[in-house]
Amino acid sequence: MKPVLRLGLIGSGFMGRAHAFGFATAARVFDLPFRVEFACLADATAEVAAAAAARLGFARSTADWRAMAADPAIDLIDITAPNALHRDMALAALAAGKPVYCEKPLAPTAVEAAGMAAAAAAAGVATQVGFNYLANPLIALARQMIAGGELGEIASYRGIHAEDYMADPAAPWSFRLDPVGGGVLVDLGSHALATAEFLIGPIARVMADCVTRFAHRPGPDGAARAVAVDDVTRAFLRFANGASGSLEASWIATGRTMQHDFEVYGSRGALVFTQERFNELRYFDTRDRRGRHGFRTITAGPEHPPYGDFCPAPGHQLGFNDLKAIEIAGFLDALAGRAPEPFGFAAGARVQALVEAVQGSAAEGGWRDV
Amino acid sequence: MKPVLRLGLIGSGFMGRAHAFGFATAARVFDLPFRVEFACLADATAEVAAAAAARLGFARSTADWRAMAADPAIDLIDITAPNALHRDMALAALAAGKPVYCEKPLAPTAVEAAGMAAAAAAAGVATQVGFNYLANPLIALARQMIAGGELGEIASYRGIHAEDYMADPAAPWSFRLDPVGGGVLVDLGSHALATAEFLIGPIARVMADCVTRFAHRPGPDGAARAVAVDDVTRAFLRFANGASGSLEASWIATGRTMQHDFEVYGSRGALVFTQERFNELRYFDTRDRRGRHGFRTITAGPEHPPYGDFCPAPGHQLGFNDLKAIEIAGFLDALAGRAPEPFGFAAGARVQALVEAVQGSAAEGGWRDV
Amino acid sequence: MKPVLRLGLIGSGFMGRAHAFGFATAARVFDLPFRVEFACLADATAEVAAAAAARLGFARSTADWRAMAADPAIDLIDITAPNALHRDMALAALAAGKPVYCEKPLAPTAVEAAGMAAAAAAAGVATQVGFNYLANPLIALARQMIAGGELGEIASYRGIHAEDYMADPAAPWSFRLDPVGGGVLVDLGSHALATAEFLIGPIARVMADCVTRFAHRPGPDGAARAVAVDDVTRAFLRFANGASGSLEASWIATGRTMQHDFEVYGSRGALVFTQERFNELRYFDTRDRRGRHGFRTITAGPEHPPYGDFCPAPGHQLGFNDLKAIEIAGFLDALAGRAPEPFGFAAGARVQALVEAVQGSAAEGGWRDV
Amino acid sequence: MKPVLRLGLIGSGFMGRAHAFGFATAARVFDLPFRVEFACLADATAEVAAAAAARLGFARSTADWRAMAADPAIDLIDITAPNALHRDMALAALAAGKPVYCEKPLAPTAVEAAGMAAAAAAAGVATQVGFNYLANPLIALARQMIAGGELGEIASYRGIHAEDYMADPAAPWSFRLDPVGGGVLVDLGSHALATAEFLIGPIARVMADCVTRFAHRPGPDGAARAVAVDDVTRAFLRFANGASGSLEASWIATGRTMQHDFEVYGSRGALVFTQERFNELRYFDTRDRRGRHGFRTITAGPEHPPYGDFCPAPGHQLGFNDLKAIEIAGFLDALAGRAPEPFGFAAGARVQALVEAVQGSAAEGGWRDV
Repeated sequence: MKPVLRLGLIGSGFMGRAHAFGFATAARVFDLPFRVEFACLADATAEVAAAAAARLGFARSTADWRAMAADPAIDLIDITAPNALHRDMALAALAAGKPVYCEKPLAPTAVEAAGMAAAAAAAGVATQVGFNYLANPLIALARQMIAGGELGEIASYRGIHAEDYMADPAAPWSFRLDPVGGGVLVDLGSHALATAEFLIGPIARVMADCVTRFAHRPGPDGAARAVAVDDVTRAFLRFANGASGSLEASWIATGRTMQHDFEVYGSRGALVFTQERFNELRYFDTRDRRGRHGFRTITAGPEHPPYGDFCPAPGHQLGFNDLKAIEIAGFLDALAGRAPEPFGFAAGARVQALVEAVQGSAAEGGWRDV
Repeated sequence: MKPVLRLGLIGSGFMGRAHAFGFATAARVFDLPFRVEFACLADATAEVAAAAAARLGFARSTADWRAMAADPAIDLIDITAPNALHRDMALAALAAGKPVYCEKPLAPTAVEAAGMAAAAAAAGVATQVGFNYLANPLIALARQMIAGGELGEIASYRGIHAEDYMADPAAPWSFRLDPVGGGVLVDLGSHALATAEFLIGPIARVMADCVTRFAHRPGPDGAARAVAVDDVTRAFLRFANGASGSLEASWIATGRTMQHDFEVYGSRGALVFTQERFNELRYFDTRDRRGRHGFRTITAGPEHPPYGDFCPAPGHQLGFNDLKAIEIAGFLDALAGRAPEPFGFAAGARVQALVEAVQGSAAEGGWRDV
Repeated sequence: MKPVLRLGLIGSGFMGRAHAFGFATAARVFDLPFRVEFACLADATAEVAAAAAARLGFARSTADWRAMAADPAIDLIDITAPNALHRDMALAALAAGKPVYCEKPLAPTAVEAAGMAAAAAAAGVATQVGFNYLANPLIALARQMIAGGELGEIASYRGIHAEDYMADPAAPWSFRLDPVGGGVLVDLGSHALATAEFLIGPIARVMADCVTRFAHRPGPDGAARAVAVDDVTRAFLRFANGASGSLEASWIATGRTMQHDFEVYGSRGALVFTQERFNELRYFDTRDRRGRHGFRTITAGPEHPPYGDFCPAPGHQLGFNDLKAIEIAGFLDALAGRAPEPFGFAAGARVQALVEAVQGSAAEGGWRDV
Repeated sequence: MKPVLRLGLIGSGFMGRAHAFGFATAARVFDLPFRVEFACLADATAEVAAAAAARLGFARSTADWRAMAADPAIDLIDITAPNALHRDMALAALAAGKPVYCEKPLAPTAVEAAGMAAAAAAAGVATQVGFNYLANPLIALARQMIAGGELGEIASYRGIHAEDYMADPAAPWSFRLDPVGGGVLVDLGSHALATAEFLIGPIARVMADCVTRFAHRPGPDGAARAVAVDDVTRAFLRFANGASGSLEASWIATGRTMQHDFEVYGSRGALVFTQERFNELRYFDTRDRRGRHGFRTITAGPEHPPYGDFCPAPGHQLGFNDLKAIEIAGFLDALAGRAPEPFGFAAGARVQALVEAVQGSAAEGGWRDV
């Protein structure tokens, strides 16, 4: 009989719903080390929480997340509340000795995020930050190929995360454009940074350019309102392993809805990926016979765990929501001690340190170590 | 409070599991008209059934599917048992006045399948056959564009379903190669036929060629064993609307894992699709400005219902398992009377009639009406 | 010092110009076995011929192609005149013992074409028919891979040539729609047939469907005029080597300008090609390591002769006109006896026999041997 | 009767041959304003020059390029000699009042290149530098769409030129790795810079990173030899029109043979291009109907001059050598005063100024105006 894991979920918006779905899917698809019980759901008011608990299948609900974090009848705290609250919630759960699953970003500043990582280490519990692109079996394959030397010595890297949701200059001013909202580097660039280190290893130095393309946007009263954050950020990268690279984050890339791309070039091979077709990975192998060589398109299949848990036949394709289930399963394996943390608070804090290094470099106009 | 729908699932193999997942996902993603209760699971033995019920979350289990079909405490019978049993199970459920959800194919012959459709009509209940590719929001878009005249008068059609699981001539003989197994036309061609009529409307005539490429395969004792079914089937099509077309089913298409493709050419536009990238639909519009025209790649997004129920942002991509949830939600809407049957027994029987017309044409070497 | 080859060109329209360019390009790109002299140009009138000779760089001109065909000061006759004249011109040249280069089709009927092939054999001279897609270095690679066993035993084939120049039902009636024009099978299907045999070897049997989708087109006076030829033709194929296949020719494929495609599936590999990107050939090798396998995109480069004669670096791409130069160079090599005929009159007559077999099969509604 | 233009070509290596072909092709394809006469070919020795003149069809030959540059019987000097000689040759020709066609780069330094541009202006003759990618009809279309406002306000730009000819760290040391060779920025980055300004307009500021990934390469004696130039260079760009962008040049991009790519994002549309498929241009138009929108693939055709001069039908594709013919035709039109210079010495000098700004920025680690 599997041990029970009593889940306390904070938040029931889009992300809260996605997490609830993810836990349910993970339970059906994988042989998880725990039987996860949807124990309690916390939200801003008792009414909202009760309705969401009924809808999502939680046994209880509360308007008091602090009480839930301290409650000995809860084993795991899952945070999908607004970003500004992540830190206090996570620290409260860690103080109670509970493992924590938290959406990105951990905290407004890298120092605070580092503090959270330190608290997690002190508590000795597993943690997880939601960087779901990394849960893709083909990203895992790419990482394994790079780490295993299949590409030889890594020479260069190109990473992008570009979308178009702010591409229209007439799009109304929103919270995203406030310094607290963070800008595109925080919103999308953090994903590109996470992917870069996940694949290639530590970044040693950065030099960056943060650009506000549209300095004003129409406010609610129609009057122009100043934009305080970046529309596009670009960075040069130096990895600890000697490779160099670049990175771009943009939310004004007209027509792009999911250009989370990378290209890795090594002395023996290359990989090219786009999240626009995330069930495919293009691979060039320098050892292929001359005249028959070229980039091949690897399609996700049972050879790429845990694809086979979703479908026994190749080529059927995973969906975005499946990636969340994989992320959750990986975290639960870590909780059970049968695998390392997929992307814990230390990794999340590291991304925020990288974000600040990029911002600092852009502000100063020069290279910065990280 | 939503009415309860008590589900009786027959079978707990790969497809049984997929159906249970599909119901669970549908319940989380959609605002279904029912609260589906996992009431009872039937399988070959009491032990197998009990274990599966526990694993998949069913309240009860049984080795007696006939009793379950007749049980007034069950509202819906879902059949994922081996093909040979589909007919008896469905007829038993219909005799008890229960709606039925049945994996394809309905029955070994078109006559029997037609009898099942007649029984469903007589019972006055909704039914559903599992042709899950049709649940894709972009296939729905294609159908709507064609029906709405966006492509003008339809001129020609090309449909394919090709995979490679029998491509190796040294692959051992298996049940698939027995006449009862049916061959590639039954296995994959049925999907291509269903898609063709779903998009273009009724097929009026066919002329076909059924080919056994590898006449023998190694049997379990190593000795060559004769193959009785088709490895590739091709057909010419005439649609009632005047369009002509072709169709190919192959399980010896080396390297292909999911080439369920179609191309539709009309007087005002064209559509090109492959299941290999089923979140994309290519569209040519003759009204585009000269010099700026070309096939455009439509990417699935919230404009294509029910994509938005899975994800509020475009470009994130649905997975294969999501299609099953859409199929189930559509069927439940039909059960509740709020939408027509997506693909009921009459449609399933029609596919089998088409399959037999294709086989008959190939046997006689000439055209055949359907 | 290279021997001189004195060229007599008949016709100076688009194709005449293309041939003149092709000879000139071939002379610059390749180390040809001859120094080709633009000796004489024949056209319908002395004026037209003189103007074209001046424009294209021919030394002399004439309105009497018969005299030119017989002229001992001419070594090679190149025919780009209207189709109806091909046969008489070629026979006259062959009667004079001259090698002939002739645009397709050789003659209105297969019997006449066979007669031309016999005349060429009797004359003992090299001949060439213009099927320029076959001059592509990557088509040569595909042929060589198939012949060399790299794909194993060939299991199935799919060939298409589809364009859209008659896709608009309101497009005015033209000579193409007359029986003499020939229809889409003659116009485009002949290319698809030539490619099929070039790659796979002899076709043994065919069964076909010839469709006139738009039975009337507006004539010059606006009144509907009956269309006597096919808009789409489809065929099933059986090759002598045991493989089966299909073929489609269409000129109503809206949005397609150059869909000359093929897919070849063998027991050890597969090839996928489209003329839309004719510098690329997709190749699947079953021996690739599991989990790293997939279709690879071979890009034309110096490893694929004679690409290197055009450009020493890979990836730069050949253009359509370059294919004509390759065709010409291959023919001149055959003339010099240093290579076999690339696609002589026998091959051209064979294509016309295939065309007639396809037409006959469609008329009778059954299989036909070829 | 067209005026004669007597060509004096310097150099008969790969590029000299390509120029001779280009002039010949241009003369056949286009209605040029001149009848170009292959008057004289100069090379390092009289023997080499004489052999090349015979091979390429020049009337005379010489080992004395200075004499040829001054010769009143020569109207146009075309320079394909080693880079180190470009400047002296061009200045000599300009001093004699002759127009000049010169391969890139103009000179080792931007100051010298600017001097050449000044000399050209003083001489009042047309000049041309060989940046042949820009001669692509689809690049012309992209430029025209941007300039005509079809993309709205330009927001961001991404440019790349990556190949793999130095990707193998064991590749032997060569002249390219010498400071005089210039490195990848000079070799490939100059193309990316030229394309960026050709499309978007003047670059105002740059910040760059020049990286030597493999600090040593095996010398002719097998001993490691230091590499003095960049393997990868990346730059941030600010355009005068307010757009920002990035640029990358790499010769260590394993598997890439022709990744000359760009992406342009504007407020009303976007363009995506790769030289790997240079007969295609992807275009997103924000005004497309929602639910039917997506990047469309524009294929080169007669609507995109001067494609129609090569082929009257769309989709047939131009080759790389055709681009050289277009470049030459454009230059001859400029010589005849019937069009502006496509890319004269001032434009070529500008590219070198950009190259030096990029190098300077990288050396100093900060932004630099250009």
